[in-house]
Amino acid sequence: MIALDEARLRILSAIHPTGPETVPLAAGWNRVLARPVVARLTQPPADVSAMDGYAVRSADAVAGATLGMIGAAPAGRPFAGEVGAGQAVRIFTGGFVPAGADAILIQENAKAEGASLTVTEGVARGRWIRRRGLDFAEGQELLPAGRRLTARDIGLAAASNHPWLTVHRRPRIGILATGDEIALPGEPLPPGGIVSSNAHALAALIASAGGEGCILPIAPDDAASIAALAGSGGYDLLVTTGGASVGEHDLVQKALGQSTTPGGFALDFWKIAMRPGKPLIWGKLGAMPVLGLPGNPVSALVCAVVFLLPALARMQGQPEDAPPTIRAIAGTDLPENDQRADHLRATLTPATEGGWIATPASRQDSSMLAVLASADGLILRAPFAPALAKGGAVQVIPLASLGV
Amino acid sequence: MIALDEARLRILSAIHPTGPETVPLAAGWNRVLARPVVARLTQPPADVSAMDGYAVRSADAVAGATLGMIGAAPAGRPFAGEVGAGQAVRIFTGGFVPAGADAILIQENAKAEGASLTVTEGVARGRWIRRRGLDFAEGQELLPAGRRLTARDIGLAAASNHPWLTVHRRPRIGILATGDEIALPGEPLPPGGIVSSNAHALAALIASAGGEGCILPIAPDDAASIAALAGSGGYDLLVTTGGASVGEHDLVQKALGQSTTPGGFALDFWKIAMRPGKPLIWGKLGAMPVLGLPGNPVSALVCAVVFLLPALARMQGQPEDAPPTIRAIAGTDLPENDQRADHLRATLTPATEGGWIATPASRQDSSMLAVLASADGLILRAPFAPALAKGGAVQVIPLASLGV
Repeated sequence: MIALDEARLRILSAIHPTGPETVPLAAGWNRVLARPVVARLTQPPADVSAMDGYAVRSADAVAGATLGMIGAAPAGRPFAGEVGAGQAVRIFTGGFVPAGADAILIQENAKAEGASLTVTEGVARGRWIRRRGLDFAEGQELLPAGRRLTARDIGLAAASNHPWLTVHRRPRIGILATGDEIALPGEPLPPGGIVSSNAHALAALIASAGGEGCILPIAPDDAASIAALAGSGGYDLLVTTGGASVGEHDLVQKALGQSTTPGGFALDFWKIAMRPGKPLIWGKLGAMPVLGLPGNPVSALVCAVVFLLPALARMQGQPEDAPPTIRAIAGTDLPENDQRADHLRATLTPATEGGWIATPASRQDSSMLAVLASADGLILRAPFAPALAKGGAVQVIPLASLGV
Repeated sequence: MIALDEARLRILSAIHPTGPETVPLAAGWNRVLARPVVARLTQPPADVSAMDGYAVRSADAVAGATLGMIGAAPAGRPFAGEVGAGQAVRIFTGGFVPAGADAILIQENAKAEGASLTVTEGVARGRWIRRRGLDFAEGQELLPAGRRLTARDIGLAAASNHPWLTVHRRPRIGILATGDEIALPGEPLPPGGIVSSNAHALAALIASAGGEGCILPIAPDDAASIAALAGSGGYDLLVTTGGASVGEHDLVQKALGQSTTPGGFALDFWKIAMRPGKPLIWGKLGAMPVLGLPGNPVSALVCAVVFLLPALARMQGQPEDAPPTIRAIAGTDLPENDQRADHLRATLTPATEGGWIATPASRQDSSMLAVLASADGLILRAPFAPALAKGGAVQVIPLASLGV
């Protein structure tokens, strides 16, 4: 048995980012940049007005003065001439400040009558002008490689004139569920059988992290079938999930060991000091990393949160090495922990003084998928953590905000 | 000018949920249930073993006793006979507990030699048995209507034997950007023009909230073109976003007023006491709700977070009436606020004592899209909020975790 942190480091050290892919801007949301977005233009492209009003020379625009209006500068239609002494140009938000003008007199501070403008309140030099490049300048890096793109980022990439983006190709993850006793939802269920839930839950988890899950046909509990499916190839990583039958991990290991894939199977480790989850295979089948998850649905999903989510982030060029956590306050006393890192299914409720109260579900049985689904997060309990009184601080992986 | 909260209530009161749609389980992630998921079976379907070991009669399995092994019960292959006095059945995690047995003797507490089993440590009645229905029972509501499905929920729906799910149809939102001065990214830019960023940012925001954004061609600043595009129909809601040119909102309003859509345009309100964003149109064109956002990219996105995200949630049958907020601590002094509800672009950094410190960007100019993109959240400042010293509590809309 190895420690959870060591296991994760060994997994992540074997992960490589996927290559770059060019996608339309409109398909870029939630993808991860493989190359930075560098501004192709300067925004605003010239000094522009921040208000509706009049472009003036501030020295002329003193209270009581009358100016002659010589034109207009709406956004997108710059005024070609120059504002001379005693002159003004009607201007609107976003309009280019014409040559000669050095301030914007807002319309509330002037009275226009035909071509004549009377200043009711003076204006200081530079007032209500947004300078060229205030938002960004051509050549400036706006979004770094490794950034997962938000809606705001898409707007910024658009504004800086990028119709295409270079992102990491979505990691393609093969998902192989094994077990004589399992059947897909809606299909005939053998006597004593259970409905397969891991493959689809894992595919959804992979989608939530920007990957693409490919669900392979369920493999029966026989080594040759498992080896054939595992070796079908084309994946950046293969996830297996065993049935709950005897020696399941031996079986998957044995099957991988029999594989005819060039290079064969190289096991790295297969037991982790964690709960739920202990049995977990990590190795390589030829060049393809293989993560063997437990068959128990709760264990499989918790292990996927702890190991697969960071692996998916790394494959997309992100630096994360652990799932994000938040600090919360324990809603009940927590007993001391044994040698296995524990992950308590918990609800999160807002604390009156701010932050969160994390309260473990009363039953932590690892077969209870409904309890996991109704949890808001996982309270992390380190190996040998001492007992913690209600009100003490804990770290929690917030599941729902990850889409998991 | 109406208050932000009143504006949002008026918007939400005019929103109706989309109808139901049947999708494959594999396409259900992040969709919102229109009908609850009710268990189609009981899980586990019978009393099952929680461990690898031996199914025994606890009265017989006392330390030193020797039992006769009469068969095996792996997961998925129930043992057909009955465990009689002095008998045991080999069992594995998930295996059905055979008739007659009332406890599982774990394998660490027994020694097997051929068909003979010597008990090294006794076992209490009921030990290591997971009772039928421990996870869920047939007919039990597992996931309520209105729930946005997580990866765990997909697993639970699978486990309870649902190959299909009934979810709300994705709201289809038309996005109409207007302005003579704007061009799509990569297209020829008119002199003095700017690259359109709102439409694609809004489409991404809509995608993040489970909707489908349809970007209409950019409308020039002329009422007939705007009216024709706005009336093209087929949307659950139309979002317009004006250019920065003169009277943009008058123009969109005027255009909608000239529409030949049956029923015409009914304006509800068009100015809100908020910053950034003040000008905002809300009304109906025939039966279709219309939300007219400002042309300024920062204002457009902030208004979309404040009004469009809750509208999208309501369209999918969710109860939300405001975007989620977190409590944070102000990282700087905040001045008193005027009559407009303010939304300060801010970074969030973890506080040493837990929670978050929200520090407003030094420049809050509403033209600065790069500042908005690099923000982690929006600090909410209520109208006439008094000055707040550094360290005081604020509410923040966390943008990145919304995918916005």
